[in-house]
Amino acid sequence: MGKRKVCVVITARPSYSRIRSALFAIRNHPELELQIVSAASMLLDRYGQTVNHVEQDGFKVDARVYMVLEGENLVTSAKTTGLGLIELATTFDNLRPDMVVTIADRYETIATAIAASYMNIPLVHMQGGEVTGSIDEKVRHAITKLADLHLVTTQKARERVIRMGEEPERVFVTGCPSIDLADEVQKNPGDSIDPFERFGGVGATVDLTNGYLVVMQHSVTTEYEKARKQITETLYAIKESGLPTLWFWPNVDAGSDGVSKGIRSFREIEGPTNIHFFKDIPPLDFLRMVNRSRCIIGNSSVAIRECSYLGVPAVNIGIREIGRERGPNVIDVDYDRKAIQAAILRHINAPRPKGVTLYGDGHAGEHIADVLASAPLEYSKRLTY
Amino acid sequence: MGKRKVCVVITARPSYSRIRSALFAIRNHPELELQIVSAASMLLDRYGQTVNHVEQDGFKVDARVYMVLEGENLVTSAKTTGLGLIELATTFDNLRPDMVVTIADRYETIATAIAASYMNIPLVHMQGGEVTGSIDEKVRHAITKLADLHLVTTQKARERVIRMGEEPERVFVTGCPSIDLADEVQKNPGDSIDPFERFGGVGATVDLTNGYLVVMQHSVTTEYEKARKQITETLYAIKESGLPTLWFWPNVDAGSDGVSKGIRSFREIEGPTNIHFFKDIPPLDFLRMVNRSRCIIGNSSVAIRECSYLGVPAVNIGIREIGRERGPNVIDVDYDRKAIQAAILRHINAPRPKGVTLYGDGHAGEHIADVLASAPLEYSKRLTY
Amino acid sequence: MGKRKVCVVITARPSYSRIRSALFAIRNHPELELQIVSAASMLLDRYGQTVNHVEQDGFKVDARVYMVLEGENLVTSAKTTGLGLIELATTFDNLRPDMVVTIADRYETIATAIAASYMNIPLVHMQGGEVTGSIDEKVRHAITKLADLHLVTTQKARERVIRMGEEPERVFVTGCPSIDLADEVQKNPGDSIDPFERFGGVGATVDLTNGYLVVMQHSVTTEYEKARKQITETLYAIKESGLPTLWFWPNVDAGSDGVSKGIRSFREIEGPTNIHFFKDIPPLDFLRMVNRSRCIIGNSSVAIRECSYLGVPAVNIGIREIGRERGPNVIDVDYDRKAIQAAILRHINAPRPKGVTLYGDGHAGEHIADVLASAPLEYSKRLTY
Amino acid sequence: MGKRKVCVVITARPSYSRIRSALFAIRNHPELELQIVSAASMLLDRYGQTVNHVEQDGFKVDARVYMVLEGENLVTSAKTTGLGLIELATTFDNLRPDMVVTIADRYETIATAIAASYMNIPLVHMQGGEVTGSIDEKVRHAITKLADLHLVTTQKARERVIRMGEEPERVFVTGCPSIDLADEVQKNPGDSIDPFERFGGVGATVDLTNGYLVVMQHSVTTEYEKARKQITETLYAIKESGLPTLWFWPNVDAGSDGVSKGIRSFREIEGPTNIHFFKDIPPLDFLRMVNRSRCIIGNSSVAIRECSYLGVPAVNIGIREIGRERGPNVIDVDYDRKAIQAAILRHINAPRPKGVTLYGDGHAGEHIADVLASAPLEYSKRLTY
Repeated sequence: MGKRKVCVVITARPSYSRIRSALFAIRNHPELELQIVSAASMLLDRYGQTVNHVEQDGFKVDARVYMVLEGENLVTSAKTTGLGLIELATTFDNLRPDMVVTIADRYETIATAIAASYMNIPLVHMQGGEVTGSIDEKVRHAITKLADLHLVTTQKARERVIRMGEEPERVFVTGCPSIDLADEVQKNPGDSIDPFERFGGVGATVDLTNGYLVVMQHSVTTEYEKARKQITETLYAIKESGLPTLWFWPNVDAGSDGVSKGIRSFREIEGPTNIHFFKDIPPLDFLRMVNRSRCIIGNSSVAIRECSYLGVPAVNIGIREIGRERGPNVIDVDYDRKAIQAAILRHINAPRPKGVTLYGDGHAGEHIADVLASAPLEYSKRLTY
Repeated sequence: MGKRKVCVVITARPSYSRIRSALFAIRNHPELELQIVSAASMLLDRYGQTVNHVEQDGFKVDARVYMVLEGENLVTSAKTTGLGLIELATTFDNLRPDMVVTIADRYETIATAIAASYMNIPLVHMQGGEVTGSIDEKVRHAITKLADLHLVTTQKARERVIRMGEEPERVFVTGCPSIDLADEVQKNPGDSIDPFERFGGVGATVDLTNGYLVVMQHSVTTEYEKARKQITETLYAIKESGLPTLWFWPNVDAGSDGVSKGIRSFREIEGPTNIHFFKDIPPLDFLRMVNRSRCIIGNSSVAIRECSYLGVPAVNIGIREIGRERGPNVIDVDYDRKAIQAAILRHINAPRPKGVTLYGDGHAGEHIADVLASAPLEYSKRLTY
Repeated sequence: MGKRKVCVVITARPSYSRIRSALFAIRNHPELELQIVSAASMLLDRYGQTVNHVEQDGFKVDARVYMVLEGENLVTSAKTTGLGLIELATTFDNLRPDMVVTIADRYETIATAIAASYMNIPLVHMQGGEVTGSIDEKVRHAITKLADLHLVTTQKARERVIRMGEEPERVFVTGCPSIDLADEVQKNPGDSIDPFERFGGVGATVDLTNGYLVVMQHSVTTEYEKARKQITETLYAIKESGLPTLWFWPNVDAGSDGVSKGIRSFREIEGPTNIHFFKDIPPLDFLRMVNRSRCIIGNSSVAIRECSYLGVPAVNIGIREIGRERGPNVIDVDYDRKAIQAAILRHINAPRPKGVTLYGDGHAGEHIADVLASAPLEYSKRLTY
Repeated sequence: MGKRKVCVVITARPSYSRIRSALFAIRNHPELELQIVSAASMLLDRYGQTVNHVEQDGFKVDARVYMVLEGENLVTSAKTTGLGLIELATTFDNLRPDMVVTIADRYETIATAIAASYMNIPLVHMQGGEVTGSIDEKVRHAITKLADLHLVTTQKARERVIRMGEEPERVFVTGCPSIDLADEVQKNPGDSIDPFERFGGVGATVDLTNGYLVVMQHSVTTEYEKARKQITETLYAIKESGLPTLWFWPNVDAGSDGVSKGIRSFREIEGPTNIHFFKDIPPLDFLRMVNRSRCIIGNSSVAIRECSYLGVPAVNIGIREIGRERGPNVIDVDYDRKAIQAAILRHINAPRPKGVTLYGDGHAGEHIADVLASAPLEYSKRLTY
């Protein structure tokens, strides 16, 4: 029979964190053969060439696909996706996988989903059934309707996928591999490191000995023009807090240019002395820094997922993560510097919240590999009602 | 305020039939401005350059996009879609519509859906919520999850779209414009014409005076290799029936090459004397010939939709239209020459079935224009559960 | 140092004949490693899936790229080239060759040339410096200006390339690999075969015992609309000659649709009894049939190149091969049935012409491999004046 | 007969300067109709959205095409060109021009050349026949071989184009439109402005009253990895000179990322107090600032072309402009801070050089429009030897 060839397409840094432990488990599974396609912002210097981390982790990258158009606007998002679709079809035609895995809901991932499903290659969708704001919401559910196998992170997500008309026996709750990393971090928090020496970055070299904040804030696609204003509120909230802060650069997205400009111009004008800015930190190091922090601020899903497991206090700003299930570690606020500051204060004056297993039990990678090895290889389906 | 610019993207001959009356209604509506993009097989000689029919109907074509890759296989289906996505994004960027209309569920139409939804242009999906076999099934529901406004043909379709998590107030039952054409044909069946003189084609010049059969059979994407065998069963069933038959060439699709080859080789070997083959007939003429026929055979949706209204007996073969709602005019059979023959005989020995308004009341075009003029222009949504 | 990785991109059946013996020589050369990319019409059923011949010859195909757009017009020629450029760039990025070989002057080959030269991979152009009609003329010389190494077939070609501003030490006369095949055919003409049984095809099963004609006529790009008329002149000339004829289907090109239609319609109307039509014959078998024939008619370059070596009489029609150097075996005529017939008669009433080594000495493959192994790997150059 | 539709494709800021006066002349010519396609970095914020300047000049932009891939490396250069080719073909198919104008030799301009020539639209190439370093050299001459009409800037360029095999009657010396702008600047040098207030930018607000330097330095494609080192030499030369300097941000190119990074890191580390950095200055304002300057340093072609007419002293660094004809205003140096400083000193201690008409007489725009209105519309040609 031969091993099942499982082709995983990774298009961005956060997606790598959400699949990493599963990649190890697939590679080690006796009935599976791993193929990795590294595409989109994975290859870009501006987003830290995450493909290098993949190789440093010992994985072989079977194909590389540059596909991101410059412009970072809505037109180029669509064109990037079209280019990816063209080239991923060729890639699959040459790699001949038995199944294709697509991760979550970034706009360009629908290219993976269409290429596989049109080519009658069983499509596995990780992390469907969640509910959030922005274009991701449309993308995620559209991919659910293209996918043949659904590996979701929560029970509620499973119920939603089934309610959308998918067959229950094709929907598995495996938890999220990102929680496996959180589990690793919890078990081995690591030694305290000097992030400035190790990861460079720009801005003030802040004193971390009495605790620090972490910020990661992405733009929100469907509110493109407001991106700059939104980031500015957070920047002032942090500056005025005076607390030492490690700020991590946002990910590629329509609008990230607004965010980038907001940050650059703020630095030029305000010269904040309590913030250091980083780009491209390996996932494990990043999560360790978050785990040690007093609070994470912004709209990263890490604050809601990994931090629910780790019990790191989180201030979630705006609509990006609206609808996502939350543990007790999250306070939601609007794009408002006063509200952001108040939430930070509430968190750092309270005891650290207890971690919960809402998004996984720390063994998602193995669960995923087991499902991939045993699920029937089908690529035809019909609405259940 | 200005008129709403409604951009309709048409990618294939049958889609034109399913939107034509709405195009007239949009053009004539005082609050709407019509933009037409003609793409994919609309432009190809091999499929009758349907774009010419559009212009003969008096419409202006605002943009043309060649996008179909040669190969007619699963890889090229995906790549065609990717190319369409790239170029439709540019097209919308230049035309700047207020809303985009995509029709039904052909594989390449997801390009229209993605381009519009990623560009924050409200997306209108015609004819969602239906259930059929093949890749169309995945495409249709994925587009539902991308669309902001759903114009469906039946009550059952509306229920399904809502059940998939769409807001009820965004789902309208307008009926299908193809029924408007059927209504026109019923009211004005036209004079009997000589199709051989008027439309050419190849094969026997059959005698139509005592009634005739019509055949239209497409390949079924996910059963690509069986396409040729399937068409051959129908060819023998028709040949052996000895009844005069007008056979209409199938549409562009992965696998249509199998169908084409099956037909060519059958003609070469069997030299059937009761079949004439046509390509590229204007929709109205085609439907008039169907309306006058004793029975329509194959797997065209015309047999199920338009013919339910007209009361034309239909023999539906195989899985392509499985799940689609049927009127009393349809007998379903497998790919089996004996079964096909038996069903034809049962039909032509019975009285003509009564027409029903299952797929529309003959005024779908106007209903559609009214909804487009009055619905809120939104491009953000969330799963209702 | 490692072997030099030589990546050969093949995009069409005739190109394969023009490189085949060099592929063997490269594969067998101790300092070279062969990579093959099979693209464009090489993969298409309609043009005989030549990729299968490559694999039957024992070569491994490293990447396949579908890139031909349907439409066969001037717009789609350009778009096909653009798509090829995008995907060949990705292919080279993944294969990492030390040099790229592009063959001759078909429109889509400029994609290979641009991808390689923009990526600083030394580009080897085979068969530059020739002069012909149509768009190939522009393409060929443009590729010369992009290429770093020129492997030409004749002394005159070498002079032209140098005159265009290329450095003399980068221009090598190796002869054409197609002559190696002709040499093989001359040394081993093979047993007489029954082409009808072996290669199928359609039309009359003609009697070959007293000699036969061979026809191969391509469309001429820049005279797109005249393609059908031109082919019709040849069809009548052949029909009226009454001589048994093997007609080989033309290659993919803008306008070949005109040619195809002309042939189909002629067969339908005139039902010629002395012509059999073939598609997709392996190069060796084709050349053996040509070698045994009394005369080759049309505008194939085979008539001018291989047949100059073999001494097969040729009637060359129209402007496609204008400017190409000729041996004594060629009579040139216009698109005119009378002129074509007269030239055929003149040839079959005269003694067979003597073969000449104008286009190669039968060892081009080895010469080519030697140059590829020894030439400096450079990708920077400047006009010599 | 109607006016000739002249479609000009502009892909970058410097190209706009090299065509601007011709656009006015074409628009005003009674027998010509102007179409403008704005593509590539013309649309990008990062390069100053030059498309806005075009519209501010009163021109209508007929189509916009986003085509630049992120990555700024050699792979993405090729893919950008392929994407442009696909979309420009569609654009020309929709705009239906009578002739297409492509400007100079940037890598992506070959997309314009191929689309037009493959579609049998007469192609006009501006500024062929020059000789420089880098990939532009290959691109320029390849476009010459695709073009039907050559509008060159110098007599020597004309001779080279003819020598490459082009017919003399298709090669016209019109001069360069950029000299028309220089002529305008010379006639009307304008009032002294405050560039810091008007154009923003970052860095020191230097004192311009006693003269200043101008720097513009692009990366050199085929020396990608050295880009950062090269720019650093110039940065130190300028810093150490202590002279007030206006530094203009380079253009999009493979490697410009190296340049950008070099500049950013230099500013962060060295904090130069005599340099101000600008991005996106309107051509006229830019040239006025250059005209008032004491010396222009870098590798911009402006230093060689416009400044030869204006008599502005220029220090040309490295190989980018090697081979280009020079007036008496240029000193050539290597990437070496000492050599750069020495050349600057030699210039500012000498009298200002005399202007020459090497690249045009100040009326190129009108000459160009006249040629476009009167030249035969041909798209077929053959090597002259």
